[in-house]
Amino acid sequence: MADIARLAVHASTFPELDLDDLLGLLARFDVTGVGLLRDHVARHGLREVRRRVRDSGLEVTSLSYGGFFTAPDGAERRQRIDDTRRAIDEAAALEARCLLLVAGGLPPDSRDLEGARHMVEDALAVVVDHAASAGVRLALEPHHPLHAAERSVLVTLADVRRICDVFGRDAPIGLALDTFHQWWAPDLEAELGVFGGRRILLVQFADWPRGVVDLRVRRLVPGEGVIDFPTLRRRLEAVEYDGPFELEVDPGEGAARRDPLTRLRTLVESYALRA
Amino acid sequence: MADIARLAVHASTFPELDLDDLLGLLARFDVTGVGLLRDHVARHGLREVRRRVRDSGLEVTSLSYGGFFTAPDGAERRQRIDDTRRAIDEAAALEARCLLLVAGGLPPDSRDLEGARHMVEDALAVVVDHAASAGVRLALEPHHPLHAAERSVLVTLADVRRICDVFGRDAPIGLALDTFHQWWAPDLEAELGVFGGRRILLVQFADWPRGVVDLRVRRLVPGEGVIDFPTLRRRLEAVEYDGPFELEVDPGEGAARRDPLTRLRTLVESYALRA
Repeated sequence: MADIARLAVHASTFPELDLDDLLGLLARFDVTGVGLLRDHVARHGLREVRRRVRDSGLEVTSLSYGGFFTAPDGAERRQRIDDTRRAIDEAAALEARCLLLVAGGLPPDSRDLEGARHMVEDALAVVVDHAASAGVRLALEPHHPLHAAERSVLVTLADVRRICDVFGRDAPIGLALDTFHQWWAPDLEAELGVFGGRRILLVQFADWPRGVVDLRVRRLVPGEGVIDFPTLRRRLEAVEYDGPFELEVDPGEGAARRDPLTRLRTLVESYALRA
Repeated sequence: MADIARLAVHASTFPELDLDDLLGLLARFDVTGVGLLRDHVARHGLREVRRRVRDSGLEVTSLSYGGFFTAPDGAERRQRIDDTRRAIDEAAALEARCLLLVAGGLPPDSRDLEGARHMVEDALAVVVDHAASAGVRLALEPHHPLHAAERSVLVTLADVRRICDVFGRDAPIGLALDTFHQWWAPDLEAELGVFGGRRILLVQFADWPRGVVDLRVRRLVPGEGVIDFPTLRRRLEAVEYDGPFELEVDPGEGAARRDPLTRLRTLVESYALRA
Protein backbone atom coordinates (compact mmCIF):
# COMPACT_ATOMS: atom_id res chain seq x y z
CA MET A 1 0.00 0.00 0.00
CA ALA A 2 1.25 3.42 -0.94
CA ASP A 3 1.63 5.95 1.84
CA ILE A 4 -1.41 8.20 1.61
CA ALA A 5 0.36 10.89 3.61
CA ARG A 6 2.58 11.55 0.60
CA LEU A 7 -0.24 11.93 -1.89
CA ALA A 8 -0.61 15.28 -3.62
CA VAL A 9 -2.77 16.28 -6.58
CA HIS A 10 -1.94 18.75 -9.31
CA ALA A 11 -4.61 21.39 -9.95
CA SER A 12 -4.76 20.64 -13.68
CA THR A 13 -6.36 17.32 -12.75
CA PHE A 14 -9.48 19.31 -11.80
CA PRO A 15 -9.61 22.23 -14.22
CA GLU A 16 -13.31 22.80 -13.57
CA LEU A 17 -12.82 23.55 -9.87
CA ASP A 18 -12.00 26.97 -8.53
CA LEU A 19 -9.34 27.22 -5.85
CA ASP A 20 -11.64 26.91 -2.83
CA ASP A 21 -13.50 23.90 -4.23
CA LEU A 22 -10.21 22.23 -5.16
CA LEU A 23 -8.68 22.72 -1.71
CA GLY A 24 -11.91 21.63 -0.04
CA LEU A 25 -12.18 18.47 -2.11
CA LEU A 26 -8.57 17.45 -1.49
CA ALA A 27 -8.78 18.09 2.23
CA ARG A 28 -11.92 15.96 2.44
CA PHE A 29 -9.94 12.96 1.14
CA ASP A 30 -6.95 13.61 3.38
CA VAL A 31 -4.79 14.52 0.41
CA THR A 32 -1.94 16.47 1.96
CA GLY A 33 -0.45 18.38 -0.95
CA VAL A 34 -1.55 20.38 -3.95
CA GLY A 35 0.24 21.42 -7.13
CA LEU A 36 -0.89 24.95 -7.89
CA LEU A 37 -0.89 26.97 -11.08
CA ARG A 38 0.27 30.54 -11.40
CA ASP A 39 -3.16 31.18 -12.87
CA HIS A 40 -4.48 30.88 -9.34
CA VAL A 41 -2.20 33.71 -8.29
CA ALA A 42 -3.10 35.82 -11.32
CA ARG A 43 -6.80 35.39 -10.60
CA HIS A 44 -6.96 35.83 -6.84
CA GLY A 45 -3.76 37.65 -5.96
CA LEU A 46 -0.82 36.17 -4.09
CA ARG A 47 -1.93 37.20 -0.62
CA GLU A 48 -5.38 35.68 -1.05
CA VAL A 49 -4.04 32.39 -2.45
CA ARG A 50 -1.58 32.18 0.43
CA ARG A 51 -4.37 32.77 2.98
CA ARG A 52 -6.60 30.09 1.46
CA VAL A 53 -3.84 27.53 1.20
CA ARG A 54 -2.82 28.13 4.82
CA ASP A 55 -6.43 27.75 5.93
CA SER A 56 -6.67 24.45 4.06
CA GLY A 57 -3.69 22.94 5.83
CA LEU A 58 -2.38 21.62 2.48
CA GLU A 59 1.24 21.86 1.45
CA VAL A 60 1.92 23.42 -1.94
CA THR A 61 3.97 20.61 -3.46
CA SER A 62 4.67 22.54 -6.67
CA LEU A 63 3.96 25.78 -8.44
CA SER A 64 3.63 25.60 -12.25
CA TYR A 65 5.51 27.08 -14.21
CA GLY A 66 8.59 29.17 -14.66
CA GLY A 67 11.09 28.77 -17.46
CA PHE A 68 10.40 28.66 -21.21
CA PHE A 69 13.86 30.13 -21.60
CA THR A 70 14.49 29.20 -25.24
CA ALA A 71 13.32 32.43 -26.84
CA PRO A 72 14.72 33.50 -30.20
CA ASP A 73 16.02 36.92 -29.13
CA GLY A 74 17.60 38.48 -26.09
CA ALA A 75 14.73 40.78 -25.21
CA GLU A 76 12.29 37.90 -25.09
CA ARG A 77 14.73 35.77 -23.09
CA ARG A 78 15.04 38.58 -20.54
CA GLN A 79 11.25 38.71 -20.31
CA ARG A 80 11.11 35.02 -19.54
CA ILE A 81 13.83 35.40 -16.94
CA ASP A 82 11.94 38.26 -15.30
CA ASP A 83 8.79 36.19 -15.33
CA THR A 84 10.65 33.31 -13.71
CA ARG A 85 11.90 35.68 -11.01
CA ARG A 86 8.28 36.60 -10.29
CA ALA A 87 7.39 32.92 -10.22
CA ILE A 88 10.17 32.39 -7.66
CA ASP A 89 8.69 35.13 -5.48
CA GLU A 90 5.27 33.54 -5.75
CA ALA A 91 6.64 30.12 -4.86
CA ALA A 92 8.41 31.66 -1.85
CA ALA A 93 5.24 33.37 -0.61
CA LEU A 94 3.30 30.11 -0.96
CA GLU A 95 6.11 28.14 0.71
CA ALA A 96 5.93 25.80 -2.26
CA ARG A 97 8.12 22.73 -2.13
CA CYS A 98 9.43 23.68 -5.57
CA LEU A 99 8.85 25.81 -8.63
CA LEU A 100 8.40 23.65 -11.72
CA LEU A 101 10.46 24.87 -14.66
CA VAL A 102 9.72 23.95 -18.24
CA ALA A 103 12.75 24.49 -20.47
CA GLY A 104 11.00 25.64 -23.64
CA GLY A 105 11.20 24.03 -27.08
CA LEU A 106 13.24 24.86 -30.14
CA PRO A 107 13.01 28.57 -31.00
CA PRO A 108 11.01 29.23 -34.18
CA ASP A 109 13.00 28.32 -37.31
CA SER A 110 15.82 26.89 -35.22
CA ARG A 111 17.14 23.35 -35.45
CA ASP A 112 19.84 23.90 -32.86
CA LEU A 113 18.93 21.64 -29.95
CA GLU A 114 22.26 22.05 -28.21
CA GLY A 115 22.14 25.81 -28.51
CA ALA A 116 18.67 25.79 -26.99
CA ARG A 117 19.90 23.60 -24.12
CA HIS A 118 22.63 26.14 -23.47
CA MET A 119 20.03 28.93 -23.36
CA VAL A 120 18.36 27.08 -20.50
CA GLU A 121 21.63 26.77 -18.63
CA ASP A 122 22.45 30.45 -19.19
CA ALA A 123 19.03 31.56 -17.97
CA LEU A 124 19.33 29.41 -14.86
CA ALA A 125 22.67 31.03 -14.09
CA VAL A 126 20.85 34.36 -14.00
CA VAL A 127 18.01 33.29 -11.68
CA VAL A 128 19.69 30.77 -9.38
CA ASP A 129 20.90 33.28 -6.78
CA HIS A 130 17.46 34.83 -6.60
CA ALA A 131 16.00 31.37 -5.97
CA ALA A 132 18.61 30.62 -3.32
CA SER A 133 17.98 33.82 -1.37
CA ALA A 134 14.21 33.31 -1.66
CA GLY A 135 14.60 29.75 -0.39
CA VAL A 136 12.91 28.34 -3.50
CA ARG A 137 14.01 25.13 -5.21
CA LEU A 138 13.82 25.00 -8.99
CA ALA A 139 12.58 21.67 -10.32
CA LEU A 140 13.57 20.96 -13.91
CA GLU A 141 11.19 18.60 -15.63
CA PRO A 142 12.49 16.51 -18.54
CA HIS A 143 9.62 16.13 -20.97
CA HIS A 144 8.74 13.33 -23.32
CA PRO A 145 10.87 13.51 -26.50
CA LEU A 146 7.58 13.91 -28.30
CA HIS A 147 7.55 17.51 -27.06
CA ALA A 148 11.18 18.38 -27.70
CA ALA A 149 10.39 20.81 -30.51
CA GLU A 150 7.42 22.56 -28.91
CA ARG A 151 7.82 22.49 -25.16
CA SER A 152 11.11 21.31 -23.71
CA VAL A 153 14.53 20.69 -25.19
CA LEU A 154 15.31 18.80 -21.98
CA VAL A 155 13.96 15.31 -22.61
CA THR A 156 16.05 12.94 -20.48
CA LEU A 157 17.10 12.69 -16.86
CA ALA A 158 20.70 12.95 -18.05
CA ASP A 159 19.86 16.29 -19.74
CA VAL A 160 18.64 17.68 -16.44
CA ARG A 161 21.42 16.11 -14.41
CA ARG A 162 24.10 17.65 -16.58
CA ILE A 163 22.59 21.08 -15.92
CA CYS A 164 22.24 20.38 -12.21
CA ASP A 165 25.88 19.33 -12.08
CA VAL A 166 26.96 22.65 -13.61
CA PHE A 167 25.48 24.44 -10.60
CA GLY A 168 26.70 21.97 -8.00
CA ARG A 169 24.96 19.90 -5.36
CA ASP A 170 24.27 22.84 -3.07
CA ALA A 171 22.42 24.91 -5.67
CA PRO A 172 18.62 24.93 -5.33
CA ILE A 173 18.15 23.12 -8.64
CA GLY A 174 16.91 19.57 -9.00
CA LEU A 175 14.74 17.11 -10.81
CA ALA A 176 10.99 16.86 -11.25
CA LEU A 177 10.34 13.31 -12.42
CA ASP A 178 7.06 12.77 -14.25
CA THR A 179 6.33 9.12 -14.98
CA PHE A 180 4.28 10.01 -18.03
CA HIS A 181 7.29 11.68 -19.61
CA GLN A 182 10.06 9.28 -18.57
CA TRP A 183 8.64 5.78 -17.98
CA TRP A 184 10.45 4.38 -21.03
CA ALA A 185 13.95 5.53 -20.01
CA PRO A 186 16.42 2.63 -19.80
CA ASP A 187 18.74 4.57 -17.50
CA LEU A 188 16.04 5.61 -15.03
CA GLU A 189 17.35 3.59 -12.10
CA ALA A 190 20.96 4.60 -12.63
CA GLU A 191 20.11 8.28 -13.05
CA LEU A 192 17.95 8.35 -9.93
CA GLY A 193 20.98 6.99 -8.08
CA VAL A 194 23.18 9.78 -9.42
CA PHE A 195 20.64 12.44 -8.49
CA GLY A 196 20.06 10.99 -5.02
CA GLY A 197 16.86 11.62 -3.12
CA ARG A 198 17.81 15.11 -2.05
CA ARG A 199 17.98 16.41 -5.60
CA ILE A 200 14.69 14.79 -6.62
CA LEU A 201 12.37 17.64 -5.77
CA LEU A 202 9.11 16.20 -7.00
CA VAL A 203 7.65 13.02 -8.45
CA GLN A 204 4.52 13.30 -10.57
CA PHE A 205 2.42 10.28 -11.40
CA ALA A 206 0.38 9.64 -14.51
CA ASP A 207 0.09 6.45 -16.50
CA TRP A 208 0.90 6.06 -20.19
CA PRO A 209 -1.71 4.47 -22.46
CA ARG A 210 -1.12 1.41 -24.58
CA GLY A 211 -1.91 2.03 -28.24
CA VAL A 212 -1.34 5.77 -28.43
CA VAL A 213 -3.61 7.38 -30.96
CA ASP A 214 -4.45 10.84 -29.66
CA LEU A 215 -1.69 13.06 -28.38
CA ARG A 216 -3.90 15.30 -26.33
CA VAL A 217 -6.02 13.18 -23.98
CA ARG A 218 -3.79 10.72 -22.31
CA ARG A 219 -2.45 11.23 -18.79
CA LEU A 220 -4.07 8.18 -17.21
CA VAL A 221 -4.87 7.18 -13.67
CA PRO A 222 -2.09 4.89 -12.35
CA GLY A 223 -2.98 1.31 -13.17
CA GLU A 224 -4.82 2.14 -16.40
CA GLY A 225 -1.68 2.11 -18.53
CA VAL A 226 1.68 0.47 -19.01
CA ILE A 227 3.78 1.96 -16.21
CA ASP A 228 5.17 -0.18 -13.39
CA PHE A 229 4.67 2.20 -10.46
CA PRO A 230 5.59 -0.17 -7.61
CA THR A 231 9.03 -0.76 -9.10
CA LEU A 232 9.56 2.96 -9.55
CA ARG A 233 8.57 3.57 -5.93
CA ARG A 234 11.06 1.00 -4.74
CA ARG A 235 13.77 2.70 -6.75
CA LEU A 236 12.87 6.07 -5.29
CA GLU A 237 12.98 4.59 -1.81
CA ALA A 238 16.39 3.12 -2.57
CA VAL A 239 17.73 6.60 -3.27
CA GLU A 240 15.91 8.00 -0.21
CA TYR A 241 13.42 10.20 -1.99
CA ASP A 242 11.06 11.30 0.78
CA GLY A 243 8.96 13.87 -1.06
CA PRO A 244 5.40 13.78 -2.31
CA PHE A 245 3.81 11.84 -5.13
CA GLU A 246 1.76 14.34 -7.03
CA LEU A 247 -0.93 12.92 -9.27
CA GLU A 248 -1.52 14.89 -12.44
CA VAL A 249 -4.10 13.15 -14.53
CA ASP A 250 -6.08 14.17 -17.56
CA PRO A 251 -9.62 14.98 -16.45
CA GLY A 252 -11.18 13.70 -19.68
CA GLU A 253 -13.33 15.54 -22.19
CA GLY A 254 -17.09 15.85 -22.54
CA ALA A 255 -19.09 12.83 -21.44
CA ALA A 256 -15.87 11.01 -20.51
CA ARG A 257 -15.28 13.47 -17.67
CA ARG A 258 -16.85 12.27 -14.46
CA ASP A 259 -17.63 14.49 -11.49
CA PRO A 260 -14.69 15.63 -9.34
CA LEU A 261 -15.70 13.56 -6.31
CA THR A 262 -15.82 10.32 -8.28
CA ARG A 263 -12.57 11.15 -9.99
CA LEU A 264 -10.71 11.95 -6.81
CA ARG A 265 -12.02 8.76 -5.20
CA THR A 266 -10.67 6.77 -8.16
CA LEU A 267 -7.36 8.60 -7.97
CA VAL A 268 -6.89 7.98 -4.28
CA GLU A 269 -7.81 4.31 -4.64
CA SER A 270 -5.49 3.85 -7.60
CA TYR A 271 -2.70 5.56 -5.76
CA ALA A 272 -3.20 3.38 -2.70
CA LEU A 273 -3.64 0.08 -4.48
CA ARG A 274 -1.92 0.25 -7.84
CA ALA A 275 0.82 2.87 -7.57
CA MET B 1 26.08 19.02 -51.06
CA ALA B 2 25.27 15.51 -49.96
CA ASP B 3 26.85 12.67 -51.87
CA ILE B 4 24.17 11.37 -54.20
CA ALA B 5 26.01 8.08 -54.58
CA ARG B 6 25.04 7.24 -51.00
CA LEU B 7 21.33 7.92 -51.45
CA ALA B 8 18.93 5.04 -50.96
CA VAL B 9 15.16 5.03 -50.68
CA HIS B 10 13.01 2.78 -48.54
CA ALA B 11 10.15 1.05 -50.37
CA SER B 12 7.54 2.27 -47.88
CA THR B 13 8.10 5.76 -49.28
CA PHE B 14 6.32 4.58 -52.43
CA PRO B 15 3.66 2.13 -51.25
CA GLU B 16 1.67 2.50 -54.47
CA LEU B 17 4.47 1.20 -56.69
CA ASP B 18 5.04 -2.46 -57.40
CA LEU B 19 8.60 -3.73 -57.29
CA ASP B 20 9.44 -3.18 -60.96
CA ASP B 21 8.08 0.36 -61.01
CA LEU B 22 9.91 1.17 -57.79
CA LEU B 23 13.25 -0.12 -59.05
CA GLY B 24 12.75 1.59 -62.39
CA LEU B 25 11.93 4.94 -60.84
CA LEU B 26 14.91 4.85 -58.48
CA ALA B 27 17.34 3.84 -61.22
CA ARG B 28 16.08 6.72 -63.38
CA PHE B 29 17.19 9.20 -60.71
CA ASP B 30 20.52 7.51 -60.10
CA VAL B 31 19.46 6.41 -56.63
CA THR B 32 21.86 3.57 -55.84
CA GLY B 33 20.15 1.71 -53.02
CA VAL B 34 16.72 0.48 -52.04
CA GLY B 35 15.25 -0.63 -48.73
CA LEU B 36 13.03 -3.61 -49.48
CA LEU B 37 10.14 -5.14 -47.58
CA ARG B 38 9.68 -8.82 -46.95
CA ASP B 39 6.26 -8.34 -48.55
CA HIS B 40 8.11 -8.13 -51.85
CA VAL B 41 9.54 -11.57 -51.22
CA ALA B 42 6.19 -12.97 -50.09
CA ARG B 43 4.52 -11.63 -53.23
CA HIS B 44 7.05 -12.48 -55.94
CA GLY B 45 9.21 -15.19 -54.40
CA LEU B 46 12.81 -14.79 -53.31
CA ARG B 47 14.38 -15.91 -56.59
CA GLU B 48 12.31 -13.47 -58.64
CA VAL B 49 13.02 -10.51 -56.33
CA ARG B 50 16.72 -11.33 -56.44
CA ARG B 51 16.67 -11.44 -60.24
CA ARG B 52 14.89 -8.10 -60.57
CA VAL B 53 17.12 -6.38 -58.04
CA ARG B 54 20.24 -7.66 -59.81
CA ASP B 55 18.90 -6.46 -63.14
CA SER B 56 18.27 -3.01 -61.68
CA GLY B 57 21.84 -2.60 -60.47
CA LEU B 58 20.58 -1.29 -57.13
CA GLU B 59 22.01 -2.36 -53.80
CA VAL B 60 19.54 -3.63 -51.21
CA THR B 61 20.47 -1.32 -48.36
CA SER B 62 18.05 -2.94 -45.93
CA LEU B 63 15.43 -5.63 -45.66
CA SER B 64 12.48 -4.91 -43.31
CA TYR B 65 11.84 -6.59 -40.80
CA GLY B 66 12.87 -9.36 -38.49
CA GLY B 67 12.50 -9.30 -34.75
CA PHE B 68 9.35 -8.56 -32.71
CA PHE B 69 10.84 -10.87 -30.10
CA THR B 70 8.83 -9.71 -27.09
CA ALA B 71 6.05 -12.26 -27.27
CA PRO B 72 4.15 -13.26 -24.13
CA ASP B 73 4.83 -17.01 -24.31
CA GLY B 74 7.62 -19.30 -25.37
CA ALA B 75 5.83 -20.82 -28.36
CA GLU B 76 5.19 -17.42 -29.87
CA ARG B 77 8.75 -16.31 -29.17
CA ARG B 78 10.06 -19.37 -30.98
CA GLN B 79 7.81 -18.52 -33.93
CA ARG B 80 9.30 -15.03 -34.10
CA ILE B 81 12.79 -16.45 -33.89
CA ASP B 82 12.03 -18.88 -36.72
CA ASP B 83 10.61 -16.03 -38.76
CA THR B 84 13.73 -13.98 -38.13
CA ARG B 85 15.85 -16.93 -39.32
CA ARG B 86 13.87 -16.93 -42.57
CA ALA B 87 14.37 -13.17 -42.82
CA ILE B 88 18.11 -13.72 -42.44
CA ASP B 89 18.04 -16.21 -45.31
CA GLU B 90 16.13 -13.74 -47.45
CA ALA B 91 18.57 -10.94 -46.63
CA ALA B 92 21.46 -13.26 -47.54
CA ALA B 93 19.91 -14.16 -50.89
CA LEU B 94 19.32 -10.50 -51.69
CA GLU B 95 22.83 -9.58 -50.51
CA ALA B 96 21.18 -6.94 -48.36
CA ARG B 97 23.48 -4.63 -46.48
CA CYS B 98 21.53 -5.45 -43.32
CA LEU B 99 18.36 -6.96 -41.95
CA LEU B 100 16.40 -4.41 -39.95
CA LEU B 101 15.21 -5.76 -36.62
CA VAL B 102 12.38 -4.25 -34.63
CA ALA B 103 12.51 -5.32 -30.99
CA GLY B 104 8.79 -5.54 -30.27
CA GLY B 105 6.82 -3.66 -27.62
CA LEU B 106 5.64 -4.63 -24.18
CA PRO B 107 3.87 -7.99 -24.23
CA PRO B 108 0.10 -7.69 -23.64
CA ASP B 109 -0.70 -6.98 -19.97
CA SER B 110 2.99 -6.65 -19.13
CA ARG B 111 4.61 -3.59 -17.57
CA ASP B 112 8.05 -5.17 -17.41
CA LEU B 113 10.22 -3.12 -19.75
CA GLU B 114 13.46 -4.62 -18.54
CA GLY B 115 12.14 -8.15 -18.88
CA ALA B 116 11.10 -7.37 -22.43
CA ARG B 117 14.56 -5.96 -23.19
CA HIS B 118 16.06 -9.21 -21.94
CA MET B 119 13.74 -11.18 -24.25
CA VAL B 120 15.29 -9.30 -27.17
CA GLU B 121 18.79 -10.11 -26.01
CA ASP B 122 17.90 -13.78 -25.47
CA ALA B 123 16.35 -14.08 -28.93
CA LEU B 124 19.40 -12.47 -30.53
CA ALA B 125 21.61 -15.03 -28.81
CA VAL B 126 19.62 -17.73 -30.61
CA VAL B 127 19.84 -16.21 -34.11
CA VAL B 128 23.25 -14.53 -34.12
CA ASP B 129 25.23 -17.58 -35.28
CA HIS B 130 22.80 -18.15 -38.11
CA ALA B 131 23.28 -14.53 -39.18
CA ALA B 132 27.05 -14.85 -38.97
CA SER B 133 27.22 -17.95 -41.12
CA ALA B 134 24.79 -16.42 -43.63
CA GLY B 135 26.91 -13.27 -43.77
CA VAL B 136 23.97 -11.08 -42.74
CA ARG B 137 24.27 -8.14 -40.40
CA LEU B 138 21.43 -7.50 -37.97
CA ALA B 139 20.57 -3.82 -37.59
CA LEU B 140 18.75 -2.96 -34.37
CA GLU B 141 16.66 0.15 -34.66
CA PRO B 142 15.91 2.14 -31.51
CA HIS B 143 12.43 3.58 -31.93
CA HIS B 144 10.92 6.78 -30.65
CA PRO B 145 9.89 6.41 -26.98
CA LEU B 146 6.40 7.15 -28.22
CA HIS B 147 6.32 3.57 -29.51
CA ALA B 148 7.89 1.82 -26.53
CA ALA B 149 4.68 0.07 -25.51
CA GLU B 150 3.52 -1.00 -28.97
CA ARG B 151 6.53 -1.50 -31.18
CA SER B 152 9.97 -1.43 -29.62
CA VAL B 153 11.19 -1.60 -26.05
CA LEU B 154 14.55 -0.39 -27.41
CA VAL B 155 14.19 3.38 -27.55
CA THR B 156 17.67 4.82 -27.18
CA LEU B 157 21.06 4.34 -28.79
CA ALA B 158 22.37 3.26 -25.39
CA ASP B 159 19.71 0.51 -25.28
CA VAL B 160 20.99 -0.90 -28.56
CA ARG B 161 24.63 -0.39 -27.69
CA ARG B 162 24.32 -2.33 -24.46
CA ILE B 163 22.92 -5.27 -26.43
CA CYS B 164 25.61 -4.97 -29.10
CA ASP B 165 28.26 -4.95 -26.39
CA VAL B 166 26.92 -8.22 -24.98
CA PHE B 167 27.71 -9.91 -28.30
CA GLY B 168 31.03 -8.20 -28.85
CA ARG B 169 32.43 -6.07 -31.64
CA ASP B 170 32.87 -8.97 -34.05
CA ALA B 171 29.26 -10.13 -33.91
CA PRO B 172 27.12 -9.16 -36.91
CA ILE B 173 24.89 -6.90 -34.80
CA GLY B 174 24.82 -3.14 -35.05
CA LEU B 175 22.80 0.03 -35.12
CA ALA B 176 20.20 1.33 -37.55
CA LEU B 177 19.89 5.02 -36.80
CA ASP B 178 16.64 6.66 -37.90
CA THR B 179 16.64 10.43 -37.51
CA PHE B 180 12.88 10.51 -37.06
CA HIS B 181 13.17 8.29 -34.00
CA GLN B 182 16.32 9.71 -32.39
CA TRP B 183 16.81 13.35 -33.39
CA TRP B 184 16.10 14.58 -29.84
CA ALA B 185 18.73 12.42 -28.12
CA PRO B 186 21.20 14.49 -26.09
CA ASP B 187 23.82 11.73 -26.18
CA LEU B 188 23.64 11.17 -29.93
CA GLU B 189 27.15 12.38 -30.70
CA ALA B 190 28.75 10.50 -27.82
CA GLU B 191 26.91 7.27 -28.61
CA LEU B 192 27.84 7.41 -32.29
CA GLY B 193 31.44 7.66 -31.16
CA VAL B 194 31.09 4.56 -28.99
CA PHE B 195 29.47 2.60 -31.80
CA GLY B 196 32.02 3.70 -34.36
CA GLY B 197 31.25 3.76 -38.06
CA ARG B 198 31.69 0.04 -38.51
CA ARG B 199 28.83 -0.82 -36.17
CA ILE B 200 26.47 1.74 -37.69
CA LEU B 201 24.86 -0.46 -40.30
CA LEU B 202 22.31 1.95 -41.69
CA VAL B 203 21.19 5.56 -41.39
CA GLN B 204 17.61 6.39 -42.30
CA PHE B 205 16.49 9.95 -42.90
CA ALA B 206 13.12 11.48 -42.24
CA ASP B 207 12.35 14.86 -40.73
CA TRP B 208 10.27 15.46 -37.59
CA PRO B 209 7.42 17.96 -37.79
CA ARG B 210 7.08 20.98 -35.56
CA GLY B 211 3.75 21.05 -33.73
CA VAL B 212 2.94 17.36 -33.66
CA VAL B 213 -0.77 16.75 -33.82
CA ASP B 214 -1.28 13.52 -35.72
CA LEU B 215 0.76 10.48 -34.82
CA ARG B 216 0.27 8.70 -38.10
CA VAL B 217 1.23 11.02 -40.97
CA ARG B 218 4.53 12.53 -40.17
CA ARG B 219 7.79 11.27 -41.62
CA LEU B 220 8.76 14.42 -43.49
CA VAL B 221 11.12 15.16 -46.35
CA PRO B 222 14.44 16.43 -44.92
CA GLY B 223 14.24 20.19 -44.57
CA GLU B 224 10.53 20.29 -43.84
CA GLY B 225 10.93 19.73 -40.11
CA VAL B 226 13.13 20.44 -37.13
CA ILE B 227 16.09 18.11 -37.67
CA ASP B 228 19.59 19.43 -38.28
CA PHE B 229 20.79 16.95 -40.91
CA PRO B 230 24.08 18.60 -41.86
CA THR B 231 25.31 18.43 -38.26
CA LEU B 232 24.30 14.79 -38.04
CA ARG B 233 26.15 14.02 -41.26
CA ARG B 234 29.29 15.66 -39.92
CA ARG B 235 29.05 13.55 -36.80
CA LEU B 236 28.64 10.39 -38.85
CA GLU B 237 31.67 11.36 -40.93
CA ALA B 238 33.64 11.93 -37.76
CA VAL B 239 33.04 8.32 -36.74
CA GLU B 240 33.75 7.11 -40.29
CA TYR B 241 30.29 5.90 -41.17
CA ASP B 242 30.52 5.16 -44.87
CA GLY B 243 27.17 3.49 -45.50
CA PRO B 244 24.07 4.70 -47.26
CA PHE B 245 21.52 7.32 -46.30
CA GLU B 246 18.18 5.71 -46.83
CA LEU B 247 15.24 8.07 -47.11
CA GLU B 248 12.03 6.74 -45.65
CA VAL B 249 9.35 9.36 -45.92
CA ASP B 250 5.63 9.29 -45.44
CA PRO B 251 4.00 9.33 -48.88
CA GLY B 252 1.00 11.37 -47.70
CA GLU B 253 -2.67 10.49 -47.82
CA GLY B 254 -5.37 11.24 -50.38
CA ALA B 255 -4.99 14.54 -52.21
CA ALA B 256 -1.81 15.30 -50.26
CA ARG B 257 -0.03 12.45 -52.03
CA ARG B 258 1.66 13.62 -55.19
CA ASP B 259 2.73 11.34 -58.01
CA PRO B 260 5.84 9.19 -57.47
CA LEU B 261 7.97 11.07 -59.99
CA THR B 262 7.34 14.44 -58.35
CA ARG B 263 7.91 12.98 -54.92
CA LEU B 264 11.17 11.34 -55.79
CA ARG B 265 12.38 14.54 -57.44
CA THR B 266 11.61 16.44 -54.23
CA LEU B 267 13.34 13.77 -52.18
CA VAL B 268 16.49 13.79 -54.24
CA GLU B 269 16.63 17.60 -54.20
CA SER B 270 16.05 17.74 -50.46
CA TYR B 271 18.69 15.13 -49.87
CA ALA B 272 21.19 16.97 -52.04
CA LEU B 273 20.51 20.48 -50.76
CA ARG B 274 19.10 20.26 -47.26
CA ALA B 275 20.29 16.98 -45.74
